[in-house]
Amino acid sequence: MLNRKDLTGLVDVTKEEILEILDTAEKFKEINSREIKKVPALKGKTIANLFFEPSTRTRTSFEIAGKRLSADVINFTASASSTTKGETLIDTVKNIESMGVDMFVVRHYYSGSVRFIAQNTKAHVINAGDGTNEHPTQSLLDLYTIKEQKGKLEGLKVAIIGDITHSRVARSNAWAMKKLGIDLRLYGPKTMIPRDYLPFGCKVCNSMEEALEDCDVVMMLRIQLERQGIALLPSLKEYSKLFGLNKNRLDLAKKDAIIMHPGPINRGVELPSYLADCDKSVILTQVENGVAVRMAVMYLLAMQQNTKLGE
Amino acid sequence: MLNRKDLTGLVDVTKEEILEILDTAEKFKEINSREIKKVPALKGKTIANLFFEPSTRTRTSFEIAGKRLSADVINFTASASSTTKGETLIDTVKNIESMGVDMFVVRHYYSGSVRFIAQNTKAHVINAGDGTNEHPTQSLLDLYTIKEQKGKLEGLKVAIIGDITHSRVARSNAWAMKKLGIDLRLYGPKTMIPRDYLPFGCKVCNSMEEALEDCDVVMMLRIQLERQGIALLPSLKEYSKLFGLNKNRLDLAKKDAIIMHPGPINRGVELPSYLADCDKSVILTQVENGVAVRMAVMYLLAMQQNTKLGE
Amino acid sequence: MLNRKDLTGLVDVTKEEILEILDTAEKFKEINSREIKKVPALKGKTIANLFFEPSTRTRTSFEIAGKRLSADVINFTASASSTTKGETLIDTVKNIESMGVDMFVVRHYYSGSVRFIAQNTKAHVINAGDGTNEHPTQSLLDLYTIKEQKGKLEGLKVAIIGDITHSRVARSNAWAMKKLGIDLRLYGPKTMIPRDYLPFGCKVCNSMEEALEDCDVVMMLRIQLERQGIALLPSLKEYSKLFGLNKNRLDLAKKDAIIMHPGPINRGVELPSYLADCDKSVILTQVENGVAVRMAVMYLLAMQQNTKLGE
Repeated sequence: MLNRKDLTGLVDVTKEEILEILDTAEKFKEINSREIKKVPALKGKTIANLFFEPSTRTRTSFEIAGKRLSADVINFTASASSTTKGETLIDTVKNIESMGVDMFVVRHYYSGSVRFIAQNTKAHVINAGDGTNEHPTQSLLDLYTIKEQKGKLEGLKVAIIGDITHSRVARSNAWAMKKLGIDLRLYGPKTMIPRDYLPFGCKVCNSMEEALEDCDVVMMLRIQLERQGIALLPSLKEYSKLFGLNKNRLDLAKKDAIIMHPGPINRGVELPSYLADCDKSVILTQVENGVAVRMAVMYLLAMQQNTKLGE
Repeated sequence: MLNRKDLTGLVDVTKEEILEILDTAEKFKEINSREIKKVPALKGKTIANLFFEPSTRTRTSFEIAGKRLSADVINFTASASSTTKGETLIDTVKNIESMGVDMFVVRHYYSGSVRFIAQNTKAHVINAGDGTNEHPTQSLLDLYTIKEQKGKLEGLKVAIIGDITHSRVARSNAWAMKKLGIDLRLYGPKTMIPRDYLPFGCKVCNSMEEALEDCDVVMMLRIQLERQGIALLPSLKEYSKLFGLNKNRLDLAKKDAIIMHPGPINRGVELPSYLADCDKSVILTQVENGVAVRMAVMYLLAMQQNTKLGE
Repeated sequence: MLNRKDLTGLVDVTKEEILEILDTAEKFKEINSREIKKVPALKGKTIANLFFEPSTRTRTSFEIAGKRLSADVINFTASASSTTKGETLIDTVKNIESMGVDMFVVRHYYSGSVRFIAQNTKAHVINAGDGTNEHPTQSLLDLYTIKEQKGKLEGLKVAIIGDITHSRVARSNAWAMKKLGIDLRLYGPKTMIPRDYLPFGCKVCNSMEEALEDCDVVMMLRIQLERQGIALLPSLKEYSKLFGLNKNRLDLAKKDAIIMHPGPINRGVELPSYLADCDKSVILTQVENGVAVRMAVMYLLAMQQNTKLGE
């Protein structure tokens, strides 16, 4: 049983909890394939999307997930919010909580801010990405997709290629995959590999070839120009040549390897269109599974009536 | 029967399809007059408003229409979207489709973009205005309003006055009215008449008088400074004097002629306030009918379960 | 019985009407404490949030209130609206009304604009703040909170401290509290006291001490830099020293006095954190009660079927 008020990261979530979320998501994926894609599970509950960074994809996925569960979903973004009037982050959160919000979905540009919020509200909190720290539901949908495609998780070989340092997706996946017995290999430009994060037990490879060899899953990360000093960035062409996926490199992986990407794709940078759109690509399946996984997380947290702050 | 996945324009819609939409809209207008203005027709469906151009009026009309049909409606505008992160238009659409969106309502600044989207998604697509190409639901609400006021469409004389070249409303109406046997006359500044569009069979008049004489309907178009080179534009005062409606000009039309405008009105430019607000003006009735017409289009498209892309 | 189409201000609302709203809010507060916080009272009704000034707190509170009543809630802000295309305010309102909107919640930067809108639409109108004029639902939630805490309203001593001139909260409270037999004392910087508003019968004090002495309620107003000439403003530190609340000053009030603030708080300016967060502070309770009070206002207005404009 999932026994927590919040999902702020996968660092402290157990293997059993992860597997329960994935199992629950399977049921919601079935519901999403029905003619009427709606269940009354969270009717009369209010979910607030609290986004301090712009986002379409993730915000929309959470909004659809909440509405499928019949919750009332309230959106607001920082630009339109009281934070521009000098209010503290916690005051903003406590105010909205006081209006009877049951659950916050939070994206914030500071690492650690979502955990800080969770510690200061009785409402449930789901991390939708905090700085370069974690993006747990993205990792969960990655895991769901891998399990759906491969029939298992344990023992698989997964390569994550790109800007590991600035990727909250990589960090959440690193925590989770280690727990699940996945052989995770990381590779990217030397300036984008976090030496100090090695303790979490992942293998940092010295070449693309080493990372991809015999892999079941190739996950290409998005180059996020907005998250890093421009000086550290190789030119996009050079990046593509050195760290992008192509047919020859993909041939190093298993014959039935799948290609993943958290999106949005920079076509021609991380991978060319002929790979983004090929049969091995499960990129859109990841997006589809994201709704079911988020429904599962919302549902399981909301069921934890007795774990509210201070009780 | 309406037998199509999308409504991207009226250019390829038949007379019978147009009349079916208008008949269906009549039922929804009756529902909209009830105490409880809501039917469960699209319960469990998700509609995404995908607006790449700012709009209140049209977006709100579609949002209300979708909610009256009990659909879940998701809004997003380009400024908050991944397109600013370099994602292609089709990738954005395919991603949102993957989240289980059943229908897109799209406004885009490029002519032809909505058809392009429709060809690349399994979801239903409704054009809410693409560049200077079409705005089919605006034309349908115009036709509904004319039919409601005049009891018929065939044989009526309709004058559209203004910037024909840049008006997607005029273009959609031109395609539709020809099919419906309406005598359409166009008039406007020489620089705003599309010589190359003459093939679609409309009469371009040489004077305001020629256009308005004996008309049943006078439709004034909005001057859209944002859509044209400023150099081509006569001053607003001069425009009003040469191409605006006034009492003397209106006297040329039939005694029971009605005044239409797609809104928002530039009062004192296209027409003076005493005409915008007079008994002959059906401008707000057009807005009212817009909701019923959009409900009809959404409903009829959603009923086409078996015409999905590639099936 | 509440017998009015609109709530544009408390200036013309009777004592009996205010008490009926507070009584009705009590029932909604009970509903908001239930497991399923939703009633079907306004199902099939459409409420439009029409905000010409940015706001999170108030907009969200009204949105949650409308959704709890099962209404469809449409948001739009001026920046995304047709008003930027030169449409008049009344044309914008009449257009949205024509789409079948039953109720407008309006915030506008001009004093008097909300009453002007109410006079020009058949839909119900609730003032969510107009310029420096009124913010009636904020005053109603203040009154609800005071009554809930103190068990009564009549005869209480209430001090409002701060920028009275620019505060629509103070103005609405002044009108209401006088009717309810509350002893209201105002205090603030000389440049922020409206000499010409004295007719509404409130006592303007000459010192903080005079205002706070023996008070039941201390209401600190927010310093709104955006609403006043910067030249008139003492520095924030100086303001805090001269007009901020502190322990010594609070000791002048009754032992069981409560501290209120309309939010968002400037911590360390109007009051220090140790007072904002102490047991006497009911600031978050005000926010909580705001949803119930707004539900009550929406509900009572919507029940007035026979008082529509011109009928």
